[in-house]
Amino acid sequence: MAYARRMQSKQQKSGTSNGGSELGLIAQIRRRAGQTGRGGLRLGIGDDCALLAPRAGEEIAVTTDLSIDGRHFRLDWHSAESVGHRALARGLSDLAAMGARPVGAFLSLGLPRELTVASGLRRAWVDRFLDGLLALAEVHKTPLAGGDLAESPLAMADIVLVGAVPSGKALLRSGARVGDLLYVTGVLGGAAAGLAALERLATDKAPAARRIPKKMEVLLAPHLYPQPRIAQGLWLMRHGASAALDLSDGLSTDLAHLCEESGVSAEVEANALPIAPGATLVQALHGGEDYELLFTAPAGTRIPRKIGGVPVTRIGCIVKRHLRQTMITLRTPEGAQPLVARGWEHFSS
Amino acid sequence: MAYARRMQSKQQKSGTSNGGSELGLIAQIRRRAGQTGRGGLRLGIGDDCALLAPRAGEEIAVTTDLSIDGRHFRLDWHSAESVGHRALARGLSDLAAMGARPVGAFLSLGLPRELTVASGLRRAWVDRFLDGLLALAEVHKTPLAGGDLAESPLAMADIVLVGAVPSGKALLRSGARVGDLLYVTGVLGGAAAGLAALERLATDKAPAARRIPKKMEVLLAPHLYPQPRIAQGLWLMRHGASAALDLSDGLSTDLAHLCEESGVSAEVEANALPIAPGATLVQALHGGEDYELLFTAPAGTRIPRKIGGVPVTRIGCIVKRHLRQTMITLRTPEGAQPLVARGWEHFSS
Repeated sequence: MAYARRMQSKQQKSGTSNGGSELGLIAQIRRRAGQTGRGGLRLGIGDDCALLAPRAGEEIAVTTDLSIDGRHFRLDWHSAESVGHRALARGLSDLAAMGARPVGAFLSLGLPRELTVASGLRRAWVDRFLDGLLALAEVHKTPLAGGDLAESPLAMADIVLVGAVPSGKALLRSGARVGDLLYVTGVLGGAAAGLAALERLATDKAPAARRIPKKMEVLLAPHLYPQPRIAQGLWLMRHGASAALDLSDGLSTDLAHLCEESGVSAEVEANALPIAPGATLVQALHGGEDYELLFTAPAGTRIPRKIGGVPVTRIGCIVKRHLRQTMITLRTPEGAQPLVARGWEHFSS
Repeated sequence: MAYARRMQSKQQKSGTSNGGSELGLIAQIRRRAGQTGRGGLRLGIGDDCALLAPRAGEEIAVTTDLSIDGRHFRLDWHSAESVGHRALARGLSDLAAMGARPVGAFLSLGLPRELTVASGLRRAWVDRFLDGLLALAEVHKTPLAGGDLAESPLAMADIVLVGAVPSGKALLRSGARVGDLLYVTGVLGGAAAGLAALERLATDKAPAARRIPKKMEVLLAPHLYPQPRIAQGLWLMRHGASAALDLSDGLSTDLAHLCEESGVSAEVEANALPIAPGATLVQALHGGEDYELLFTAPAGTRIPRKIGGVPVTRIGCIVKRHLRQTMITLRTPEGAQPLVARGWEHFSS
């Protein structure tokens, strides 16, 4: 962790006692980080490490997610606010999938200098990136506890989320059992439909016409501002879900992971799938980055229709493997067919 | 965390059930990570998060350090093994400075494709990077618990270290008190002297002549393979040190941080400084990246001459501030002078 250290070191390098965009940026991060909830954070930005105090009987969950310009976002397509939101959402969603509560986030940021300075009346890109990131952090009471900062010719952010979960209670991918029922939170395919719309906007029109129409915003929101299901993950951890993961690569791919880790197969009812408005069945089956939770629970477990205001839909069940081969079957009115995993291809890879 | 997820997703993308350099790389990371010590790691690579189990009464220390080609290392100067070693050493050194024991490391890696493939008889750059990183991890019984991986036009590694320390016992920068004595572990200026030698080697000679002479290796080692002082930090945490940090930016800069955080001033005896072989007084005072510990202890605390085989040297003392201004004074046989912080400039910034 080097925010505080580097601030001083930059100060010395520039020979001034104040000013300078990087110095200002670090001071701003430190100041704004303090405005978020504190949770189990004992010591934040400013020492060699941050200190977090889990409660007695808790385990620590840790996840890291790298976001790189041209791979996970595009500076010319995504607003700075969306890039910040999505970077944090990916990590929070991993915590949600374990049933963990967030304790702190760490941000390692590599940025070209021009993204750190204001241009005329327009605030610096990094300020708006932090707007997006910290607004979501505030919703989930997640303090920004530290990180690192460097100038870089390529924009990139590595987000680390630290959470806590009662010992032995974390939701794993490996917990699904034959006879369990299969559920998802929210609706599916919305992020893929939003990305497709964004791509059309970005490529079909002249730059001047790229202002996003109001009615498009609803379609774009699941891609630009996905909502991690922290409250739902906590509920499922406490109320007897047997396995969970978050839908980052797409239902067909992520369900295959869950089945492989659990040593089971699964059946999905096509008619039961909660397809997002504007999305297709294919996007619901294979589109990634919805960040909804896919989970299983024993047939006797009461799962409500909504958890924390988010709909929960039963979409299938867990069945035995044949010849030790995991298989996902899609049942449609026309009959059953294998659902082949078609991993979500991040838009540029 | 996306190692396991991405492995599957790449598998689907390439349409093969095996092979492919990235797929092979993730499998290799997972396999090799398992060979290191397990410590408090309950669940490693393969689920949405890793799970770490601190002992009762412990706090969690977290630090992140970004290493970017051209900023923190140079692909044309540093061996892959050294880049891997140094990335991990920076994080471990932050844990050492808190008196924390390592529990797990997380590695987010962005690499150009050519660094992930073998060339003729030469193993891939990333394999040798992992050699360097995992050899140091093994020394400090630190399992590689997770991370993320992406193709990137720029080589970069973000290292996250998670450690544990008894609640309320972490060594902070803010604990130094007037009358405390000031110490350092090891010797100073060695990394700066080594970097200067590396720069001469890299720029003075034709590429064919760049094989490093044996006698140079000793001079280069403190820069290429700095040793984090984990055992020394643990000893100091248990035996009453009052404050500590690691020397990453250089003595003059880092001592100023310690004094500012503690609200004190300090005096340093030039003649007492343990200068590394081949280094100058200026390199010992201002050179960074030695990753030795700078610490304070009350005058009555017995500090041995060596801790875990590493020499410990008393270099000065903590004194009162005048007019609320922190000042560092350097005492030489010729008299006293202010020691102005001259932050180590990472070689390219």
